[in-house]
Amino acid sequence: MSPSGFTLQPIGVISTPWRSIADCPRNGRQPDPAPTCLVTVDDAFTDGLISLDGFSHLILLYWLDQAKPPLLQFTPPFDSRPRGIFATRGPRRPNPIGLSVVAFDGFDGPNRLKVRYLDCVDGTRLLDIKPYLPTTDSEPGATMGWLASHATRNRNTAG
Amino acid sequence: MSPSGFTLQPIGVISTPWRSIADCPRNGRQPDPAPTCLVTVDDAFTDGLISLDGFSHLILLYWLDQAKPPLLQFTPPFDSRPRGIFATRGPRRPNPIGLSVVAFDGFDGPNRLKVRYLDCVDGTRLLDIKPYLPTTDSEPGATMGWLASHATRNRNTAG
Repeated sequence: MSPSGFTLQPIGVISTPWRSIADCPRNGRQPDPAPTCLVTVDDAFTDGLISLDGFSHLILLYWLDQAKPPLLQFTPPFDSRPRGIFATRGPRRPNPIGLSVVAFDGFDGPNRLKVRYLDCVDGTRLLDIKPYLPTTDSEPGATMGWLASHATRNRNTAG
Repeated sequence: MSPSGFTLQPIGVISTPWRSIADCPRNGRQPDPAPTCLVTVDDAFTDGLISLDGFSHLILLYWLDQAKPPLLQFTPPFDSRPRGIFATRGPRRPNPIGLSVVAFDGFDGPNRLKVRYLDCVDGTRLLDIKPYLPTTDSEPGATMGWLASHATRNRNTAG
């Protein structure tokens, strides 16, 4: 491990209806109905998609390349006091990795996935696809701290 | 965005009881009871922890620095045929970012978090902390594809 950091490589690109940050919904559950988005995996990584059929949900990681520089505290637009970036899903993180739990609606070609519940800008670079496992990833009773009074299924995060 | 990739910086370090890959449990829910692990955030990022209290669960991202080189397909030890890396939670990913949903048991000092359900080796470098939001992150009815016949709450993934 180098103390100077770790290097990522994009493995694909995400197509969404949102052409700019200003167009993006507050979160991927806000649009109703949620539009289908396409995730295109680069040819070099297509072999990694085998056996993805049958998972109803996936976790996508992607690089928030349009995020402004990191900001450790900020006051969310719907709030009245500063919150730590790690207590939000905002984009101005030390490592600007976005994460979405998405519904997986199958393939549209050998290297293209149809998904719903993304909120990122069109052209966002994909970093990883993981199968969603309710046995370890689902905590329906989790409490939401300061976000409890703000969050609903359709409106909850800063980014 | 540079075509050569994106650079991450570690923001802290994770302490677990597991000194080597061979010691790690199959997943963070396997040990019963799950031991408390400590997440120490570097001083430079401590300001980002404000308002983390009250979230019962967090999503941690970390760098799998001991992972072998990427392998797009492999046969899991409990399986009989090759699976794509993106259909598994195994570590040999193109971008070796580990993800765990953990229970957050509060602070042990201003920059140290007590968590449960990690499965990574002691000394793993932390990349991000996100609040877990059941409104967007919980899908208790998700189906698990090829893992359905293997997964239980206490035994399910390859890494």
